Amino acid sequence: MESITRSGIITLTTDFGLNDAYVGMVKGVILNIFPSAKIIDLTHNIEPQNILQAGYLLKTSVPYFPEGTVHLAVVDPGVGTSRRPILVQTSEQFLVGPDNGIFTDFFSANAKVFHLCRPEFFLSQISQTFHARDIFAPVSARLAKGMEPEKLGEAIPDPKILTLPQPEIQPDRILGRIIHIDRFGNLITNIPRLQIPEKALIRILGKEIPGISTSYTAPRGTLLAIIGSSGLLEISLASDNAALRLKARVGQTVEVRNAET
Amino acid sequence: MESITRSGIITLTTDFGLNDAYVGMVKGVILNIFPSAKIIDLTHNIEPQNILQAGYLLKTSVPYFPEGTVHLAVVDPGVGTSRRPILVQTSEQFLVGPDNGIFTDFFSANAKVFHLCRPEFFLSQISQTFHARDIFAPVSARLAKGMEPEKLGEAIPDPKILTLPQPEIQPDRILGRIIHIDRFGNLITNIPRLQIPEKALIRILGKEIPGISTSYTAPRGTLLAIIGSSGLLEISLASDNAALRLKARVGQTVEVRNAET
Amino acid sequence: MESITRSGIITLTTDFGLNDAYVGMVKGVILNIFPSAKIIDLTHNIEPQNILQAGYLLKTSVPYFPEGTVHLAVVDPGVGTSRRPILVQTSEQFLVGPDNGIFTDFFSANAKVFHLCRPEFFLSQISQTFHARDIFAPVSARLAKGMEPEKLGEAIPDPKILTLPQPEIQPDRILGRIIHIDRFGNLITNIPRLQIPEKALIRILGKEIPGISTSYTAPRGTLLAIIGSSGLLEISLASDNAALRLKARVGQTVEVRNAET
Repeated sequence: MESITRSGIITLTTDFGLNDAYVGMVKGVILNIFPSAKIIDLTHNIEPQNILQAGYLLKTSVPYFPEGTVHLAVVDPGVGTSRRPILVQTSEQFLVGPDNGIFTDFFSANAKVFHLCRPEFFLSQISQTFHARDIFAPVSARLAKGMEPEKLGEAIPDPKILTLPQPEIQPDRILGRIIHIDRFGNLITNIPRLQIPEKALIRILGKEIPGISTSYTAPRGTLLAIIGSSGLLEISLASDNAALRLKARVGQTVEVRNAET
Repeated sequence: MESITRSGIITLTTDFGLNDAYVGMVKGVILNIFPSAKIIDLTHNIEPQNILQAGYLLKTSVPYFPEGTVHLAVVDPGVGTSRRPILVQTSEQFLVGPDNGIFTDFFSANAKVFHLCRPEFFLSQISQTFHARDIFAPVSARLAKGMEPEKLGEAIPDPKILTLPQPEIQPDRILGRIIHIDRFGNLITNIPRLQIPEKALIRILGKEIPGISTSYTAPRGTLLAIIGSSGLLEISLASDNAALRLKARVGQTVEVRNAET
Repeated sequence: MESITRSGIITLTTDFGLNDAYVGMVKGVILNIFPSAKIIDLTHNIEPQNILQAGYLLKTSVPYFPEGTVHLAVVDPGVGTSRRPILVQTSEQFLVGPDNGIFTDFFSANAKVFHLCRPEFFLSQISQTFHARDIFAPVSARLAKGMEPEKLGEAIPDPKILTLPQPEIQPDRILGRIIHIDRFGNLITNIPRLQIPEKALIRILGKEIPGISTSYTAPRGTLLAIIGSSGLLEISLASDNAALRLKARVGQTVEVRNAET
């Protein structure tokens, strides 16, 4: 594998929140090793222990970053157990974090996964509960500075994979699910644009939506189906909060039919 | 208009919150086009769709930034409609966002406004719902990198203007309003220092405050009138939260009288 | 004292929250004076006026930052009174903020404290309520840029000190307290690793915990005692939120006994 030129950028995605000292310590460790690192917060508000939410956020954000960026992502309920610390090299970028499936979406054919098994690149003291600071931050800093993955760890063939719920395609309909609810109360589903018929009829939580809209603008309270910015079907309530009004929750069913049949 | 030397700084002000991938995607797009951009978060916690709040925050923050800074501000209920994407050039700085009045306070005589109508400077695919990523981020990156506004868009004479509520000056009193409540529960009004008589009597929500204080320090529970850091009259409760105790809300009336008449 | 080489990094720790313009103004002032400053947010979510929480966060984060970093920390209930603005120089780093005890943990023998009494290094107009913007930000920027503390202020021998509650060591037990509850609901106590016997028995809120665990992993709902990442005793509930389930609050008592006696 050829070496990837580094961008010097390290992004952070964690469930640490912003009320504790955890984020500060991680940033300090990175800057101590690589003072000119450009640290970019993606979010520290992942729901505690929600690996799937972090994976979804990474999947949608990472492709927009420049080649040679390092993405440090830590949602790590298994910290202190035997779960491995890993580094993923895609064709263009790097991800560093726990081997718990958080990087599942990046395990393509050209990806390489490394077990971070060289303590000489960690902090000298490793706590049982904070590998973000003690292992992932120093490794991310060294990686962003130019050290090769092969030096930081050993290639492994079997990273942990999480299987994400796929929409079910039936003869007369597609059955999907709400996979995320955003700050505006929009319901993001797992049904991609390609699976949606040109004239679609959407059913969700006892409501029916005829057709796909192209903007959020409609009379207040109109329920809208829209192709969201990630190319997935979204349900939105014009000038209002769909999740609140429909009492929607992640995991609930969305049905798409062809309105012409 | 002479070219403004760029500072390389891009500030972000949005209502995206920090639980979704939206902020991450915007940062990725900026850094992909302009890897050495210095991205500064002002806030991503603007109340969803609250254009006035974003405008107030920009008005008070922007003047402190260096010449040639680009301020990307997106509170955009009209995304996907015909509302224009715009760029505002003041005598020293730049603002980029939707033409919905969010930049009203910057439309002075020396400001120039441009309609961002050149898709070659956007991402190649434009979603209907996320112009921050697809239009405003790439334009802000190019602008911060040095591209001239005249190249990025066409000058327009008629940006949308929001009229903000002004205090009413009556013969014997001034009637103002609460325009913002901050994290400490301080009530920020729209009455500027200059309109307040030397010996003032303030009335708010059935309470009376004699005179203007110079610090927040007073016996716990004392109601204080103070000239806040933006030069506006503020109401504060010593060692306590005025908004909570007084059940105050944005929009409520504040009266100022001359205590000597 | 020899001059410390600057890292160009300025960290921010405040109770300003992220819904107001305060953080934006502070960042603008810093960048206006020192455009290449690397600004790092530690947190802006300190509980309003909670000096102890800010002190604890600084104590645990600051040691991880590179030499010559400037830490701007503002939790400042006394703003506008006679409390002094100060600068603390430790053997390696700098802290800037109000003289209210927030930097107590950094007042070691080799620390030097300066009263910031030179208005020529502040903004030209000083508000009564926002010294973070008007005094601390411009001083931090000048300090990070290389100006010497001796030029920015006058050495003082008597900064305000806060005495933090220490664990009580009794013949047969140690009595400590909960000093912080983190986002995961872990209860951080003030009992350091060194004071805990090899075979310990912990009592908290009517529950008993036999021994110290080395990871958070145990059957859901198991109450765990662990040495946290700061070297202090922590109480955690496996796959759950200890603070919520035990109705724990900062200040409550934790008892540690030797299980063998």
